[in-house]
Amino acid sequence: MVKLIVMYGPPQDTEAFEEHYANIHAPLAAKIPDVKRFESGLVTGTPDGSTPAYHRIAELWFEGEEQMRDSLATPEAQAAVGDIQTFATGGATVLFQAV
Amino acid sequence: MVKLIVMYGPPQDTEAFEEHYANIHAPLAAKIPDVKRFESGLVTGTPDGSTPAYHRIAELWFEGEEQMRDSLATPEAQAAVGDIQTFATGGATVLFQAV
Repeated sequence: MVKLIVMYGPPQDTEAFEEHYANIHAPLAAKIPDVKRFESGLVTGTPDGSTPAYHRIAELWFEGEEQMRDSLATPEAQAAVGDIQTFATGGATVLFQAV
Repeated sequence: MVKLIVMYGPPQDTEAFEEHYANIHAPLAAKIPDVKRFESGLVTGTPDGSTPAYHRIAELWFEGEEQMRDSLATPEAQAAVGDIQTFATGGATVLFQAV
């Protein structure tokens, strides 16, 4: 399995970010084909009490590298990716991970 | 549930890092009490082909915030945390996440 990880930096307006995430982005992400599992959660802190580098982290699992790349090439995935630019005012770091 | 996420930056010597991780760090981490689930995997890339900010990501699940803090205060957890300094030559970013 492979995992796509999206780490959102602290947004300029947390409330606006969360509202867009819940009402617009999550429904778009839910349409991405061949996602085996989806999880998303707020970063709540760090061990030393410093400000976390990320506000929210989302994870999408795929059967394999090929399935993930095929999925990301679909219009549904492109719509979700394109939407990130419209609300992720703190940036978004995206990684692939072998799991 | 809460998740402790450890994101290791790219090490100076990948082979040495992976050897230490598998043979010394993972066994130490396995002794941390009250960990409900443990996962660790290599970062394999990014969508735009740029160098990933992290080399390996590990995740430890706990029943709740209180259980996590109690667990992290144990000698077993302190030994695992202390060990990070000895091999994570690319640094380690640690976060708590609500899941």
